[in-house]
Amino acid sequence: MGGVMDKVRVSILGATGLVGQWMVKLLENHPYIEVTALSASPGKVGQRYGDVVKWFIEGDVPEYARGIKLTSTDPVDQRNVDVVLSALPNDVAEPVEAKLLEAGLNVISNASPRRMDPNVPLINPEVNWQHLEVLRESKGSWLVKNPNCTSAIITLAIKPLAEHIKELYVTTLQAVSGAGYMGLSYLAIEGNVIPFIKGEEDKIAAESNKMLGIMGKGKYEPWGRPVRVTSIRVPVKYGHMASIFMVMDKEYSVDDVKRELTGFKSLPQEANLPTAPPRPIIVSDRPDAPQPARDLDHMAVTVGRLMASGNVVRMVALGDNLVRGAAGITILTLETMRAMRLI
Amino acid sequence: MGGVMDKVRVSILGATGLVGQWMVKLLENHPYIEVTALSASPGKVGQRYGDVVKWFIEGDVPEYARGIKLTSTDPVDQRNVDVVLSALPNDVAEPVEAKLLEAGLNVISNASPRRMDPNVPLINPEVNWQHLEVLRESKGSWLVKNPNCTSAIITLAIKPLAEHIKELYVTTLQAVSGAGYMGLSYLAIEGNVIPFIKGEEDKIAAESNKMLGIMGKGKYEPWGRPVRVTSIRVPVKYGHMASIFMVMDKEYSVDDVKRELTGFKSLPQEANLPTAPPRPIIVSDRPDAPQPARDLDHMAVTVGRLMASGNVVRMVALGDNLVRGAAGITILTLETMRAMRLI
Amino acid sequence: MGGVMDKVRVSILGATGLVGQWMVKLLENHPYIEVTALSASPGKVGQRYGDVVKWFIEGDVPEYARGIKLTSTDPVDQRNVDVVLSALPNDVAEPVEAKLLEAGLNVISNASPRRMDPNVPLINPEVNWQHLEVLRESKGSWLVKNPNCTSAIITLAIKPLAEHIKELYVTTLQAVSGAGYMGLSYLAIEGNVIPFIKGEEDKIAAESNKMLGIMGKGKYEPWGRPVRVTSIRVPVKYGHMASIFMVMDKEYSVDDVKRELTGFKSLPQEANLPTAPPRPIIVSDRPDAPQPARDLDHMAVTVGRLMASGNVVRMVALGDNLVRGAAGITILTLETMRAMRLI
Amino acid sequence: MGGVMDKVRVSILGATGLVGQWMVKLLENHPYIEVTALSASPGKVGQRYGDVVKWFIEGDVPEYARGIKLTSTDPVDQRNVDVVLSALPNDVAEPVEAKLLEAGLNVISNASPRRMDPNVPLINPEVNWQHLEVLRESKGSWLVKNPNCTSAIITLAIKPLAEHIKELYVTTLQAVSGAGYMGLSYLAIEGNVIPFIKGEEDKIAAESNKMLGIMGKGKYEPWGRPVRVTSIRVPVKYGHMASIFMVMDKEYSVDDVKRELTGFKSLPQEANLPTAPPRPIIVSDRPDAPQPARDLDHMAVTVGRLMASGNVVRMVALGDNLVRGAAGITILTLETMRAMRLI
Repeated sequence: MGGVMDKVRVSILGATGLVGQWMVKLLENHPYIEVTALSASPGKVGQRYGDVVKWFIEGDVPEYARGIKLTSTDPVDQRNVDVVLSALPNDVAEPVEAKLLEAGLNVISNASPRRMDPNVPLINPEVNWQHLEVLRESKGSWLVKNPNCTSAIITLAIKPLAEHIKELYVTTLQAVSGAGYMGLSYLAIEGNVIPFIKGEEDKIAAESNKMLGIMGKGKYEPWGRPVRVTSIRVPVKYGHMASIFMVMDKEYSVDDVKRELTGFKSLPQEANLPTAPPRPIIVSDRPDAPQPARDLDHMAVTVGRLMASGNVVRMVALGDNLVRGAAGITILTLETMRAMRLI
Repeated sequence: MGGVMDKVRVSILGATGLVGQWMVKLLENHPYIEVTALSASPGKVGQRYGDVVKWFIEGDVPEYARGIKLTSTDPVDQRNVDVVLSALPNDVAEPVEAKLLEAGLNVISNASPRRMDPNVPLINPEVNWQHLEVLRESKGSWLVKNPNCTSAIITLAIKPLAEHIKELYVTTLQAVSGAGYMGLSYLAIEGNVIPFIKGEEDKIAAESNKMLGIMGKGKYEPWGRPVRVTSIRVPVKYGHMASIFMVMDKEYSVDDVKRELTGFKSLPQEANLPTAPPRPIIVSDRPDAPQPARDLDHMAVTVGRLMASGNVVRMVALGDNLVRGAAGITILTLETMRAMRLI
Repeated sequence: MGGVMDKVRVSILGATGLVGQWMVKLLENHPYIEVTALSASPGKVGQRYGDVVKWFIEGDVPEYARGIKLTSTDPVDQRNVDVVLSALPNDVAEPVEAKLLEAGLNVISNASPRRMDPNVPLINPEVNWQHLEVLRESKGSWLVKNPNCTSAIITLAIKPLAEHIKELYVTTLQAVSGAGYMGLSYLAIEGNVIPFIKGEEDKIAAESNKMLGIMGKGKYEPWGRPVRVTSIRVPVKYGHMASIFMVMDKEYSVDDVKRELTGFKSLPQEANLPTAPPRPIIVSDRPDAPQPARDLDHMAVTVGRLMASGNVVRMVALGDNLVRGAAGITILTLETMRAMRLI
Repeated sequence: MGGVMDKVRVSILGATGLVGQWMVKLLENHPYIEVTALSASPGKVGQRYGDVVKWFIEGDVPEYARGIKLTSTDPVDQRNVDVVLSALPNDVAEPVEAKLLEAGLNVISNASPRRMDPNVPLINPEVNWQHLEVLRESKGSWLVKNPNCTSAIITLAIKPLAEHIKELYVTTLQAVSGAGYMGLSYLAIEGNVIPFIKGEEDKIAAESNKMLGIMGKGKYEPWGRPVRVTSIRVPVKYGHMASIFMVMDKEYSVDDVKRELTGFKSLPQEANLPTAPPRPIIVSDRPDAPQPARDLDHMAVTVGRLMASGNVVRMVALGDNLVRGAAGITILTLETMRAMRLI
């Protein structure tokens, strides 16, 4: 691609789903990313995005996107594209993305297949942007994966302490939008909590170990800590919460923890990237924080209920499952790669 | 009092609240407990219970209770009473109960004040009925306390494994009814989760340690394990859930755990007490159990999501916060004392 | 078919949906209806009902149905069947039912296609069982339709007054289950009300006019009153409510209305049919009735807020949209036809 | 008071409730209204507003209000005040407001007592600002009342057609916040609808007739149309909806109606008052509008589902019960009085 000044042209796959809608919204008026193609389900090819999408997130369909004619996901339809951003559902993602990679296209993808592939960087920018270095020597097209929404929120919240964590006990309370627009029946979840989200606990444990571990220079070393998770679906629309107990390798005070979390910055903040939150971790001083209804930031993680007793530290973290957990991370990853001159 | 055949006459304080309503309901057609007096707030003295109570739980005001004229909580109004059952709110309970004890009346109480008093048994019958033995030698009136709803549910779920537990990491998802009929604003909790319930985490830790410890023969030895809890309010009407990680003193398999939990019985089951669940712990085989909307048993605790890895065991437990967590335990305690010939 | 003693053998199409599940449940231990076949979606043919159905309504999969192997909806698979009960979704019902009728099978169907066909009885038993007489002379297979859930509830509530009604102004508050198990996104309806249900208002107006009109002896005369409806989806799981203003042809008092509604009985009650409610209309004396959470009867309609001023009468009616509104009516129709010796 | 340039100094009573909070918020940075005093419940006198208020509406406590020390509602504490704005609860409003009027203070009040007093203007500015003229000749202090939230929303929606309306049939779906922060138990309303709001239907009928009628020059003539209402509480946080059938005195087309509603403006719009919505009635073109979750404007009423058949017109209207329904109207009334040189 070109130098710092050039536009990065992207295509968005799965543009009509909740995550796709957020990608379209976040790219409105972006300083250097330009959306040149949008795709949805095969039956919609040729129709205008504005006519097809049932816009469900905040605001309304961005003007710039309304007239874009939906294309297929086939490589031939991704011609004037520097990077394909994929918000495809898990069940169709792999073959589509494989085909694009074979055709020489670069892909940053939200879908689960291949996240744990040892050759594929799994990126939560503030947490492990360094893993992107493995692409420096790569020739041809590359694939970068973004994590599961809850893995993204948890790893960001604990990143400043990660080096000293020996064990994690986590219980998550996950919003219904995490299952997709029609992912869960109202009849099943209303006034109820469901302590089972298929595959979620294993994903969180595996992805956290990968992102907090080492990847690069021929090495691939997961973080190696036991990450025990109970994932529970709750009747909340947006925002995943995690109650996190961390067994540390030494004693901590609440002030220690607060200082580490509040002071944390990473390359996205230092490079002042457009989609980066000024502070990735916000520590709330309200005793009853964080709450989805009151404390949901799109890209930062909000933390509260800090407690420390001996070697055990407790926090409750909250993040936006569709933005920090998905669409926002995808765009921030692209911005980070640009700042690293990988794009 | 009398022998096995005699009725035990009780009075219920706070009879119009959610817990009081459940006491009234559970005592309908009781083989040997007879409700001889009911009290509510001072302004209602003299009115018929059926006219005052806004019956909110299942079913309707039991016939036997409709015509009972509400009395005050004063000792003079508790004359033909063998045991006072108290469902008074925390802020008025202590002075009222103290006055009754001074006047020679026996009290079994749900309210928090004095639960941690080293001379007062804190009883969850299947868990620590033996603690009631301390009353054997006591002269004059006695006070027995029942635990916080969540403490009751958790201690019952882990009782069979308690001896081998070294540490507990718990996150609770607590129903709105736990805060009382008007305890929480709809505007605050609807579509939201609130990771703060004042005083709850400390109560759960302290009460669990007392109930799982030793009390008797001059000894008072709490269980002594660290019990770390995050308590979260969720938009569910009835039923508290707990995600429990137990660090054990040896390795366990899921089958080991299942066997211990399923096989667990205690005096209430062996004595076939009227309010005792046949099996105190129900292990569900559904992968997405237990759920408040589907698996809520009034007196048993339902457990699911059993996992074991090395020394760490995980379970998710669910109990009825108003019955196992309050009213049902009070009545079962009385039945247990009778079976132990303490009443 | 046979005489009074014989079993009526039925097949249920769409047996795994909410309405189908209720049909299966209601037919458990039925005195003379026997379920001999069950169908669901094509991909499930050959599998056991108990293994396929995600049982979502009250209770659990009835024992008798668990082992039944799902068949296709093709006539060849409906051999030992006297009547086919169809709970098929609207988009597949018409061709399937047509094929069955052509093959000589009788069908009672819940699906919308052909409800307004002037040759097809549209039956809400207590309201217009007489319309079934048109089948007396018919040769070959017959088709009977049941109404839209809300039409069923409204017409039953107003039936005793129908003769004297000149105009109706109705606003309905319809439960989410009316849209099917996955019919509505949680994200769309939670904490919200949606004043639009596609096609609903027209159906209610047309079907009410047909059911309250005359059909028989060559005549087909709709009721002829203007029925103006606003249909609104509300975040309730089960139970449709209707706020009904009736402009009458003379003055009424509340006592008049109460008497008419309470005293109403029809053939199903007089013939003591198994699925008939003893009283089709229950008038509640509570000022805040009827409420879905407190007053939902499966087959009766519950009415409250009766008011009368001059010629205008107001009532609020509530019915179970899946049972009175669908599955229960289908079975009661079959029982009614049997009592009329049409089966 | 002074001329056009001068500040109008106000005191807000009941400043910590939902309506009071909105008044405080709406007056932040107001061009000419200055908040000089705030009152809440008696026990809070002397404390800082920022320390006492549990801020629950959008955003956070406005800076300007944080340090204001709460005073009592006594006249002696309303000294530097031109107009008292009352958001007091109904049960305490009357004596407090009476005392203030006696002491020579002017009051604009949201509370129900005296709304129907024939000498007291009941003002929904765009609807009946002309009624304020009765104060032109008055000497001494004056009282102006604002209507019930639902009356405000309905009368604004129908104002352009009011002259030609002969009868109204209305069903309202009212949000929980209309009952106050703790007005309704979560247990009562969650997943339920309650077709009874004490006194509401009578208020809506009486207040609509007063506001749409004539008041002035010695005349007091209510509008005189029958307004029949069913009021239903629904599990929505903010926003009251009304399904309105209007029997007109002639035929209307949907285009006629749309034109009347869209074109409607009144003095507040013409005088460009700060709190006036540019267009008081917004007609949505979406088929499923208006919805509280998507279409709630603070001061305008949003209308949809327009239908016309012969003389009957139907609309569904939605308004913000706390702003157009209460706090916003109070402030707009003051601005209107200023524009009319009554203040």
